[in-house]
Parts: sequence; structure tokens; C-alpha cells
Amino acid sequence: MNISGHTSKAFEKDLGDLHNQVMQMGALAEKQVNDAIKALIKGKRKLGRKVASSDDAIDHYNLKIDEECTRILAIRQPTAVDLRFVIAMSKSIVDLERIGDEAEKIGEYSLALVPVEHDDGYFKPIKHLSSSVALMLTDALNAFARMDAEEALRVSGAIGDINEEFDALMRLLVLKMMEDPRSIKAGLNLMWCARSLVRIGDHVANICEYIVFMVEGRYLRQFDLSADDDE
Amino acid sequence: MNISGHTSKAFEKDLGDLHNQVMQMGALAEKQVNDAIKALIKGKRKLGRKVASSDDAIDHYNLKIDEECTRILAIRQPTAVDLRFVIAMSKSIVDLERIGDEAEKIGEYSLALVPVEHDDGYFKPIKHLSSSVALMLTDALNAFARMDAEEALRVSGAIGDINEEFDALMRLLVLKMMEDPRSIKAGLNLMWCARSLVRIGDHVANICEYIVFMVEGRYLRQFDLSADDDE
Repeated sequence: MNISGHTSKAFEKDLGDLHNQVMQMGALAEKQVNDAIKALIKGKRKLGRKVASSDDAIDHYNLKIDEECTRILAIRQPTAVDLRFVIAMSKSIVDLERIGDEAEKIGEYSLALVPVEHDDGYFKPIKHLSSSVALMLTDALNAFARMDAEEALRVSGAIGDINEEFDALMRLLVLKMMEDPRSIKAGLNLMWCARSLVRIGDHVANICEYIVFMVEGRYLRQFDLSADDDE
Repeated sequence: MNISGHTSKAFEKDLGDLHNQVMQMGALAEKQVNDAIKALIKGKRKLGRKVASSDDAIDHYNLKIDEECTRILAIRQPTAVDLRFVIAMSKSIVDLERIGDEAEKIGEYSLALVPVEHDDGYFKPIKHLSSSVALMLTDALNAFARMDAEEALRVSGAIGDINEEFDALMRLLVLKMMEDPRSIKAGLNLMWCARSLVRIGDHVANICEYIVFMVEGRYLRQFDLSADDDE
């Protein structure tokens, strides 16, 4: 990270610590997402149950970092890039918490899918969607660690492909359900999972936006690139 | 609003203007939601199309108010209750924007529902869910206007009932789809609408949380009341 030129060493340390904490929270969210995907794709029920009930740690980070942001704003009264940095951290943790929530839901839904369904034809596209979303999250966290706006801009573009994958999967699942009404319950569970995956992508795009805002002082939307929360 | 005791009149005016702008944005989001519900429940296609493409104004408010929050933080360097007030505004607009996004989606889905489906038995529960969510939003905006933490705490409790209504509706829709596979497409559209309605409720609960945080300096979660983003 490159937040330099502070007269106060203590202030610099505050900002560095804040960044580290958010990265730790990000790593935790990333692990949750990867575990949820593993539970979903490989039918690992024990892992699914674990993910479905492990959101507390992320919530705790959220509260702690939020308080730290408020403290820094009040005591250090940052301006310019430092102020934007603190605001970006404060917003990123909201999205990281939501990412944890979505992972939790995927863990829950995965429990409702019996292993046999994992052989069905629509499993390949949901697997592909999972990989795309997981990769986008990892790339965004790397850009976040280096506060790399250019990379963040690139990563946020992935949401377009993810939305297209999602739409194709929805069409496939509806067809399947119409052909075989007995598959409706499983189909719905897969739909909820797909929705949660896309929403994770949306939250990742938001985080990319905060990185750009922090570095450039303007929002991604002002680059006229669509980063809508278009689920 | 009762943000008093500032030596600087200009600062006081800044905070008052900020509050007003957020309330205007809130009123716009409320109108979007009510229009979306009208389009959905009464099958008003023209209104549905209007709502489905009218999110720009809310996005514009979001950007404008966000910049204003950053400006106030940088120039006025608020502390204590004033700082919490600016943070609460800055967070509330994120949820208001998402509420607009969800209303937009409901507008879109409503277009896919042909009028005859409005006679079906599951229309009563979705109508009831719509009313519950619309009422929660209006109550929260009233609490927001007066920065009334006690009322915000009360309003946030409504999300429990809304979640129960949603779950009951989901069970009903799955049964219906299993009985009559031709209803799958319409059933799915109603499910997406119900999901968007519940998510609006979640965002309203978040806004209630910010009101409590602003007034009391602590989060609703610290009252040990569940305000999870449990869609």
C-alpha cells in the first residue's frame, strides 16, 4: 500500500492497520465463498453445514472495523486521499459482510441438494459460474491489497460475463423444470445458489468501485462503465 | 432534526441540507417501490415499464449526496454525533439506491406477468407481503425524518414477520408449480418479485440500524436484536 507523506507515524500506522484488518476480513469472506462452492459443487454436506453457520466471524470484523473507521475519522480527521481511503474501507466491509451472507445461503441451499442431482446437465454451467465468481473475488482482493485502480477497473468488467452466464443458466433450469416437474424443488435451490453467486459478483464489483474511488477520487460510474447492482 | 449546538451556522446548514437531500432520495425510492407494487398487483404494464427504467434519478442522488458527505467530512471534520450523522447518511443512501434497484426489478418482472395470473390464489399473499414492505419503508422514512431511534428500533422488528410471509409464499408457489408445470414461468416471476420485496425490507432494516447508530452511537446488533441481511 502506498499511503505516504504523513507527518504522523501513528496516523500512518492506523491506516495500515485498517487496511490489514479489511484484508483479513476479505480473506475470510473468500474462504467462506470457496467453501460454499465446494459444498455446492462436490456435495460436501458437512462443509455446507459449517458454512451455513459461520457468518459470526465476518459480522464481528464488520463491527470492529466500522468502529475503527469512525475512530480514525473523529481523531485523525483525514482529508483528501486519506479520507477517501477510510471511506473506501468503511464501504468495502459492508460488501464483504454481504458476500459472507450470500456464501452462508449457498451453504444452506447446498444441504437441500441430494448428491444424485450433481450428475444433471445443469451442473456444468453452475460449476462454471462458481469458478467465474470465485476468480473475480480473488482478483479483486489482490487489487485491493495493492490498491491497484487499473486492475480493479479490469476486474469489475467480469460482471458482464457473469450476468450472461446466469441468464443462460436460468433459461436452462426453467426448461428442465417444465420438462420434469419433480425437479422443481432442486431446480429452485440451484436458482437460489446461482442468484447468490451473481450477487457476490455484484458486491465484488462494488469493492472494485471503491478501490477506483480511493485512488482516483472518482467513481467507476463516472468512467461511464456500467457497474450497476444488476442482479 | 435536532443537531444543535454548532458554533458554525454554515456547518449546521450543511448537515440540514444533507438530511433534506437524503429524505428527498428516500421519497423517490418510496415512490418507486409503491409504483412497482402497483404495477405488480394491479397489472399496470405502462407503470411497470416506467419503473423498470427510472432508476437514474436515484443513482444521481446517490452520487451527489456521496460527494457532499465526503466534502463535509473533509472540510468540517465533524466529531461525535455530527460524525455519526454524516456516516449514517452516507450509508443510508447505499441502501436507498438498492431499494430503487429492487423496485426496478419488480417493475421488470411485473411486465412478464399476464393479467389472468392476477386471479390466482397466491396473489393474495404477495399483495399482503407488498403492503407489509411498503408500510415498513414508510415508517422507516418517518423515523428517519425525525431521527427517532426508538421508532426505528420498532420498525426494524417488522422484518421478522416479513420473512415469515415470504417463506409461506415460497412454499405455496412451489406446490402450485408442482401441481401445474405450465405455471412455472409465472411462479418464478412471482418468486423473484417476492425476493425483491424481502430484500427491500432488509435494506429498510439497515436504514433503521443507521438511525439507531446515529442517535445512540451503537449498532442495533449490539442491542442483541437480529437485523441480519437474511433474505
